[in-house]
Amino acid sequence: MKNISILGSTGSLGSNTLRVIESFPRRFNVVGLSAYKNVKLLAGQIKRFKPACVAVKDEAKAQELLKLIGPGRVKVYTGQDGLVKLATLNEIDLVIIAVVGSAGLLPTLEAIEAGKNVGTANKESLIMAGKLIAQRAKKKKVLILPLDSEHNAIFQCLQGREKKEIKRLILTGSGGPFKDKKKETLSSVTPEEALRHPRWKMGQKVTIDSASLMNKGLEVIEASCLFDVPPEKIDVLIHPEAVIHSLVEFIDGTILALLGVTDMRLAIQFVLTYPERLNSTLPFLELDRVKTLTFERPDYEKFPALKLCYKAAKSGGTAPAVLNGANEEAVDLFLRKEIKFTGIVQVVKRVVNAHKRIDNPRIKDILKADKWAREKAIKNYELGIKD
Amino acid sequence: MKNISILGSTGSLGSNTLRVIESFPRRFNVVGLSAYKNVKLLAGQIKRFKPACVAVKDEAKAQELLKLIGPGRVKVYTGQDGLVKLATLNEIDLVIIAVVGSAGLLPTLEAIEAGKNVGTANKESLIMAGKLIAQRAKKKKVLILPLDSEHNAIFQCLQGREKKEIKRLILTGSGGPFKDKKKETLSSVTPEEALRHPRWKMGQKVTIDSASLMNKGLEVIEASCLFDVPPEKIDVLIHPEAVIHSLVEFIDGTILALLGVTDMRLAIQFVLTYPERLNSTLPFLELDRVKTLTFERPDYEKFPALKLCYKAAKSGGTAPAVLNGANEEAVDLFLRKEIKFTGIVQVVKRVVNAHKRIDNPRIKDILKADKWAREKAIKNYELGIKD
Repeated sequence: MKNISILGSTGSLGSNTLRVIESFPRRFNVVGLSAYKNVKLLAGQIKRFKPACVAVKDEAKAQELLKLIGPGRVKVYTGQDGLVKLATLNEIDLVIIAVVGSAGLLPTLEAIEAGKNVGTANKESLIMAGKLIAQRAKKKKVLILPLDSEHNAIFQCLQGREKKEIKRLILTGSGGPFKDKKKETLSSVTPEEALRHPRWKMGQKVTIDSASLMNKGLEVIEASCLFDVPPEKIDVLIHPEAVIHSLVEFIDGTILALLGVTDMRLAIQFVLTYPERLNSTLPFLELDRVKTLTFERPDYEKFPALKLCYKAAKSGGTAPAVLNGANEEAVDLFLRKEIKFTGIVQVVKRVVNAHKRIDNPRIKDILKADKWAREKAIKNYELGIKD
Repeated sequence: MKNISILGSTGSLGSNTLRVIESFPRRFNVVGLSAYKNVKLLAGQIKRFKPACVAVKDEAKAQELLKLIGPGRVKVYTGQDGLVKLATLNEIDLVIIAVVGSAGLLPTLEAIEAGKNVGTANKESLIMAGKLIAQRAKKKKVLILPLDSEHNAIFQCLQGREKKEIKRLILTGSGGPFKDKKKETLSSVTPEEALRHPRWKMGQKVTIDSASLMNKGLEVIEASCLFDVPPEKIDVLIHPEAVIHSLVEFIDGTILALLGVTDMRLAIQFVLTYPERLNSTLPFLELDRVKTLTFERPDYEKFPALKLCYKAAKSGGTAPAVLNGANEEAVDLFLRKEIKFTGIVQVVKRVVNAHKRIDNPRIKDILKADKWAREKAIKNYELGIKD
């Protein structure tokens, strides 16, 4: 029996994690769950999975939750401290970090300090402080198991291989909803159009990032930290069918690829059951039914977010945190229809260019850079840089 | 410095093995080489690689060779004993079995007994006595490293994984030159047409087997022995681009695939340098240039050889040896234009059906069954079963 906390259990990845757990009733014990605002869904999850404690956004949400489930049923924590509490509970073996945004950073670090294995889908923490996370995990001998399909694929392709054997990590991406759209028309796309991802059902933030290819760029930064490979050894390959989840090229020319159905539960189950592998409850991939897989180079001109991410990855230090913070705010501005789709990367670029990088930053420096980037992004917008 | 014997150094795979060795002059020392008839090419290889000993078909070929290279230059052995001698030399670390046909069987077994690692492209020995070979290799703690691209791919996909994790081995095949030809027209194809393989340049025997899909069926038998996986867990997938060299599906739905350029030196280099991986001298695979990969189910009606092989794999015992022996003779009859292309599988089928299987056979039984199958195949032909 593996004891698990899930931070962000009401989101897309959190809910899917619970669906996988439900398929193996004797394998997992859910000890902690957390929601930001959706206490109604959390209440249902509490009834179903009977965790010992939960965390919600604030005191008001805690009261709302208690009204739904009644008192004494579960210990309720709030805010960032609540997330850290859930991530460091004595009895847990594995923490799933499924929260979106920089809120995932401190719980990830504290979970590592507490010696917990971490399954993470929280890109932001890896982008902001990936090197620190990797270093501390190594020191504490805990595992960082990637939950998103690309990094999970690379993790599996690298199992049993040595770093010196790597020539290239190749991250695949579907190309998003605007792959075949003309560059000139991108400035007029609506949030509704950008939210129509052709392959994956995910949260809003990451779906917008997929449309701008910022997501793929952020994944390059993430992969660089997670696998300790410089960005120039990481490539992006557009693969619309999303059947090959990513690949590793070795120095002898051999390429290993991980293929599977386009369902995040494939990677989730791997992380939950690792180092074991259990029978799947998902349909299996049949390549003779898929029939065709296609590949193309990404269009770096049409999607300037990609190059921006490579640049930040090479700069290192606080640069990725600033890029990430500015992007979170810019995506929010776009979703609220305050800026155009093409304005996202414009805002991010200005903030990144204005930033004075700190090398080998401490967490304090990273959080400060993140805060600065967010404020700067909003200020840029308010100053009228809207496209 | 790794000391190596290459049995069958003048064939397609043997020559390519020497090309790879040439790229790493300080890594390998060629101790033994063998040719069947092509002493002219062997003479050139002797001058270039300076082996301590060689083997040729018979005394006449030995004399021919000595005329070319002069006396005292190299120790010359002959016949089957010569091959065994080369495979068991004290100073060698690795034997490459690149001979075609059942002549590879005894040298393989003797190399294992002598504690040598074996890199093998000799399908026939694995088909005839794969279980015995696998068992003895395990007992002697020597490695059997597959040199053909499919099994090499599966070997690599399985590295670091446990047998209980396997759901399916998936062998890819280009489909051969007759993939899109109508079934009715197959009886009239010529050896010249059958020898035009769309992807791989190989020897005649294996090229004909590729055209009939017998080769893929034989690979199923081979994979079953090499990886100790029952034939019902092995699938064949037609993949004309020959970029994915084979795949392994795990019980959780994850599929690992090995991709690379269509050049046998990729697998050869892996075997030669194993467990290390060295930089390739081949061009790297670029999926954005390949652009499209396609997959389809094999046509079991058009290519009855496949089902015949599955049946023999399930029967086990001497059945695969009989199938293999009959096929070698039938292919020879086809190449000599004595029977039609569709006659190959007819001859094999009749011989297999007439065979009284011996379970858990000794080598003696296997060799006897092989001999019986060959005689029976020729007798069938002589009795007028020509189509």
